[in-house]
Amino acid sequence: MELINKPITIVGGGLAGSALALLLGQKGFPIQVIEKRPQQSENIRARSINLALSDRGVKTLTKTGYVDDILKIAVPMKGRMMHSLDSVQTFQAYSSDSNKHLYSVSRQLLNDKLREHAEKLDNVKFIFSDACKSIDVKQCTVETQEKNKEKYEASTIIGCDGAFSAVRGSMVRLDRQDYSQTYLKHGYKELCIPSGPNQSYQIDKNSLHIWPRGSFMMIALPNIDGSFTCTLFFPFDGPLSFSSLDTRDKVDQFFKDYFPDAYNLMPNLLDDYFDNPTSSLVTIKTDPYHYQGKACLVGDAAHAIVPFYGQGMNAAFEDVLELVNCFDDKSLHIGGESGKPTFDNDHFNNIYSKYQTNRKANSDAIAEMAVENFFEMRDHVGDQLFLFKKKVEHLLELKFPSRYISRYELISFSTQPYSIAQKIGLANQEILKELVKVDNIQDLKIQTIDKIKEMERISQLFKSSSNYTHVFMIGQSIHCHCNY
Amino acid sequence: MELINKPITIVGGGLAGSALALLLGQKGFPIQVIEKRPQQSENIRARSINLALSDRGVKTLTKTGYVDDILKIAVPMKGRMMHSLDSVQTFQAYSSDSNKHLYSVSRQLLNDKLREHAEKLDNVKFIFSDACKSIDVKQCTVETQEKNKEKYEASTIIGCDGAFSAVRGSMVRLDRQDYSQTYLKHGYKELCIPSGPNQSYQIDKNSLHIWPRGSFMMIALPNIDGSFTCTLFFPFDGPLSFSSLDTRDKVDQFFKDYFPDAYNLMPNLLDDYFDNPTSSLVTIKTDPYHYQGKACLVGDAAHAIVPFYGQGMNAAFEDVLELVNCFDDKSLHIGGESGKPTFDNDHFNNIYSKYQTNRKANSDAIAEMAVENFFEMRDHVGDQLFLFKKKVEHLLELKFPSRYISRYELISFSTQPYSIAQKIGLANQEILKELVKVDNIQDLKIQTIDKIKEMERISQLFKSSSNYTHVFMIGQSIHCHCNY
Repeated sequence: MELINKPITIVGGGLAGSALALLLGQKGFPIQVIEKRPQQSENIRARSINLALSDRGVKTLTKTGYVDDILKIAVPMKGRMMHSLDSVQTFQAYSSDSNKHLYSVSRQLLNDKLREHAEKLDNVKFIFSDACKSIDVKQCTVETQEKNKEKYEASTIIGCDGAFSAVRGSMVRLDRQDYSQTYLKHGYKELCIPSGPNQSYQIDKNSLHIWPRGSFMMIALPNIDGSFTCTLFFPFDGPLSFSSLDTRDKVDQFFKDYFPDAYNLMPNLLDDYFDNPTSSLVTIKTDPYHYQGKACLVGDAAHAIVPFYGQGMNAAFEDVLELVNCFDDKSLHIGGESGKPTFDNDHFNNIYSKYQTNRKANSDAIAEMAVENFFEMRDHVGDQLFLFKKKVEHLLELKFPSRYISRYELISFSTQPYSIAQKIGLANQEILKELVKVDNIQDLKIQTIDKIKEMERISQLFKSSSNYTHVFMIGQSIHCHCNY
Repeated sequence: MELINKPITIVGGGLAGSALALLLGQKGFPIQVIEKRPQQSENIRARSINLALSDRGVKTLTKTGYVDDILKIAVPMKGRMMHSLDSVQTFQAYSSDSNKHLYSVSRQLLNDKLREHAEKLDNVKFIFSDACKSIDVKQCTVETQEKNKEKYEASTIIGCDGAFSAVRGSMVRLDRQDYSQTYLKHGYKELCIPSGPNQSYQIDKNSLHIWPRGSFMMIALPNIDGSFTCTLFFPFDGPLSFSSLDTRDKVDQFFKDYFPDAYNLMPNLLDDYFDNPTSSLVTIKTDPYHYQGKACLVGDAAHAIVPFYGQGMNAAFEDVLELVNCFDDKSLHIGGESGKPTFDNDHFNNIYSKYQTNRKANSDAIAEMAVENFFEMRDHVGDQLFLFKKKVEHLLELKFPSRYISRYELISFSTQPYSIAQKIGLANQEILKELVKVDNIQDLKIQTIDKIKEMERISQLFKSSSNYTHVFMIGQSIHCHCNY
């Protein structure tokens, strides 16, 4: 059965593009994927980036049918390992439920897996080493610039080509396309803790390691070969910044001072620091995500976000699943449920419109929460009240596991829409604001004990209930009790 | 004296570019202006747009020394003429001071005046009919695409090339350049009320005519030849919109129904409606405005705004004046006040940094206020409380002329920075909120009389004072008096 005459052209064969090619390919559509990079990445080292894969991403991988094979390359992370200035490590489990974990996964290896499974399909073709010269979304054509100098005709173009998307670029030049790019004043640099003897892990394998230092921080995620990829998030400018660390001596001293335990495990630190690029952190938004059934944006191309919830890839995979589900949605057929799918521009327009309706608010929500989390980490890490709030929140999670769910939990360990997580997060803030009301910051410790006792007492009264109103009432009761 | 080796290259010879070429040319700098349009606009009709010139713009024109010559082409507008659905006209003077007026001025004629005065200078050269192919801000070169296919080397590039600026385009592709474009759901179309016999004006010459109709409106500004250029602001989509008026009959009926008096004066309405483009309304923001002393943005290129305060051109002229003043600022010379001006990249960087510091907050303020004014006009025109507030505001202006100044007045009839106008506008809102507090919307009329009486009484008490705190206190006093 020929579903469509011309292929669906996916621009970009990265994570989103490969996953989409695989899932749409499985439905029988002719697919061509145009990828500017060569098939085998020439510089694996430079691409040894790893990412945190959470439930949202796993859900999409499950849909492909290859999740077990794919998770072979993933390292489970069961919690955060905090590294203090004096090299003390403190483990914080993500959950008392040991089944809840994130995965650390190599971008390159995951990409290879998805692409290889997609390429096994006869109707899916990858075209490598060919960047787009121009994309005409009105004509549905993609002209490439390198070897082939080919003009590809498509039934529809799907842009999976990342934060600096060429497909989006051609849409932004059309009339009435909203667009914004907003940079943080921080950038990041990738570094490495190599494996020990026999590919052993030099720090705990099953943790996401964090070195929080106020206005900057470093994190490290495990790779399957025993190494860790570290990321330093650091201001571009200022007294302690990428600009200020301009000699090998200064970089050496900086790591010795601020990350002493990691420093001892990073023999190539100085070369890595000066060889690896300093990258910027951007939030990109656009509206609409699609153009008249002829073009549609997926993942970073539609909404690049900053990495402070580790959700960029997961959000992209959610897009992919939503778009694939819209392809299946019979109510979007021309002629409604009874109509046969036509997969013409009108039908694609229906598909893309529903995709946008279901994704836009969620992408905006995770974009905002990720930036918020950055400022929270940067500005409040030494703030006594903030830390107290975090403790109270942790207590609430323990005491009311089915009733109080933190925003972090909702984002990282559920598939609740991001916009719902954002709303519940705001409700949580209200509850916490009530709970931590203190007349004097000095009284915090005493009040903590009072509050815990009281929370335990009141929790008995509300045992049977399971909604937020009650948790909120508990908050108010505790507050009243503590202050009067 | 050769101030610099290579010329200052101004991209765009529109209003901002021509004014800047004139003012910098007068300082002796070698200037080249690259303008994509031909010297004589081939289609004067299509360009017969007129604009409202206010005190801010006049201040810049005064600086050129040619203000009297330029104002010969301007028609003073002393107030608004409101046209109701049943063709009743109501005049609202802008001010009791008859010296306060706006000017209606043809974009094309004003542009010609500024360019002609600039071209008289030996050191200023305009290059016409040559659009930019590529701009390399790092190398300070501008490559053009048409006749000349020339590569121009510049000591610095100043982008005066409008909302879709090529100079800004090259900056946005660099790292860490914030950018946004945000469209309204309304668009606009220009129409015409031609002159009567002997170039007579068919409606009042010295007014800005407004046909407010809730979700849409039309305005008309006088031209010196007796005609009026009308602008219809109208939704793109919906039951009554540019999309819905898709036949000559529908357009005819629409104007008959909603603008009956204007309809009778528009013999070419249907041809104009279908021949003239439907244009979109965009707000464009970017940050920073400049790049390392090599490029700088001025006017719409830096901050396109929607026209609902009639301030786009005036804001651009303020930019020009600010930038020219920064060129004069001795404290920005390398080596401070004592240093000789070098006009190298470092010096230009100082100039542009100060220009940005002084302009960015103001451009953002007028951009926000213009959008706000659009929503206010669209959503509140039939709102009783809103109209009452406007009446009370008018009263305050009359009673406390030196103490209560409306935001409109600050924007249109002062050169107070836009950001100050925005702040005072917020204070005004607080005052008005106090003053119009009513328990029941039905009591509005009775309370109005009470409040006016009370305001008169209290105004005596505060005669000697002249600051906002007192006006605010008056507001509170009146509120107390009325309600208790």
